[in-house]
Amino acid sequence: VEKGIQKIVLIGAGNVATHLGLALLQSRFKILQVFSQTSESASKLASKLNCSYTNAIEEITDQADIYIFSVSDDALEFCIKGFPHENKFMVHTAGSIEMDVLSSKSDRVGVIYPLQTFSRQVGVNYKNIPFCLETSREEDFIHLEKLAKIISDQVVRIDSPQREILHIAAVFACNFTNHMYVMAQKILEKENIPFSILHPLIKETLRKTEHKNPSELQTGPAARNDLNIISKHIDKLAELPESQKIYTFISESILKSNEN
Amino acid sequence: VEKGIQKIVLIGAGNVATHLGLALLQSRFKILQVFSQTSESASKLASKLNCSYTNAIEEITDQADIYIFSVSDDALEFCIKGFPHENKFMVHTAGSIEMDVLSSKSDRVGVIYPLQTFSRQVGVNYKNIPFCLETSREEDFIHLEKLAKIISDQVVRIDSPQREILHIAAVFACNFTNHMYVMAQKILEKENIPFSILHPLIKETLRKTEHKNPSELQTGPAARNDLNIISKHIDKLAELPESQKIYTFISESILKSNEN
Repeated sequence: VEKGIQKIVLIGAGNVATHLGLALLQSRFKILQVFSQTSESASKLASKLNCSYTNAIEEITDQADIYIFSVSDDALEFCIKGFPHENKFMVHTAGSIEMDVLSSKSDRVGVIYPLQTFSRQVGVNYKNIPFCLETSREEDFIHLEKLAKIISDQVVRIDSPQREILHIAAVFACNFTNHMYVMAQKILEKENIPFSILHPLIKETLRKTEHKNPSELQTGPAARNDLNIISKHIDKLAELPESQKIYTFISESILKSNEN
Repeated sequence: VEKGIQKIVLIGAGNVATHLGLALLQSRFKILQVFSQTSESASKLASKLNCSYTNAIEEITDQADIYIFSVSDDALEFCIKGFPHENKFMVHTAGSIEMDVLSSKSDRVGVIYPLQTFSRQVGVNYKNIPFCLETSREEDFIHLEKLAKIISDQVVRIDSPQREILHIAAVFACNFTNHMYVMAQKILEKENIPFSILHPLIKETLRKTEHKNPSELQTGPAARNDLNIISKHIDKLAELPESQKIYTFISESILKSNEN
């Protein structure tokens, strides 16, 4: 009988690594070591997790049961290449990188992708975050699932092509949505109106999607083909050219979708 | 001493009129009559509100204390022109129409603009909806405030130029955000993944804005200048040209805002 996963090394000390580490701290898992290319960020996270750290990739310990690579997509290649051990259980946390990038160093590879937006200094309730898992070996799926279930109630099996699609959808639903909030914030700033006045509206926009698909729920000037109001709004945005461009572009896209 | 507002006529039977009418029904106010150009929609709303109705504008009763014009922006002009009485207290509910469009028929005019997205058949909790009020006479503000406070805990004074700005911001935060959800939904549909998997992510995107401004909270490929992932995503969206166009356009806008 194979023993379960208990000892963890975190490769990376950014937002996702930090949030994962803190979530795992309150569990039966033991974090052995943090690696980061910058000594400062490695030591900072290690002190939070009460473990050792290194910024020398060849000094990563061989004592762990799992190595979680949670670095920027650009740094991932460097970290895999420099990883000093073979046939360890290696997983990464990236949305749009195939599991197989890890296969050069091991047959036991996987992905643990938290479908969430992490910002430093904003706490997160992990229990509701979908964790999307994939492994090369079925036995390892069970191990990874146990680890993920400590953190979250929503653990799902998602393969690499699905995960990329999910990541793209998340970019629209989270990053692009936040960019719409940024535009709204900048528009309101000119009149000294706080962004929080929009919170109930935004909450309702989301809440409605619990009952119907977003495509059935569109409202507003573009949805009702109100070209007068659209052109009044575009004129009014003359001093905010970036907001004006986006208003024009997205309104046209909604008008077009009305035709379907 | 002037008596308060008690008797109401609703001009219009669309989403906003329906939601306002239903909210006022559970109060000390009395809805006398509903007017709509289509007899069918007038009678439908009147039966919900247990009041009379008409589709002949000249038959609007002169017995009300307030006439709430809640019609599409296009229909508003027709309804004001045809309104058969003078110097009644007339208010409209439109975000981007000045209060003064009502002044041709009365000196007692106002606006009651609920900053919310209303869809037929989706219930709303009014208590959290900001109601934005404006009146030509200060005495009428107090009357309108009393009415609005029956419905909502968040009643604010907003003049016509501010209201237009607020409406534009709401288009970004609600309609354009919903369009991002639509794009995400269509992307996920191809892999048979339900949109609801994104709910925790979207909730978190909003929740974070309770602590910081959206502009400080941007995450994702564009925010970290990850051009590799952006171009992978754009390639992957080849079969969804509208989503691809928006992905490209909004990513460029985020990349540009990184420079500031």
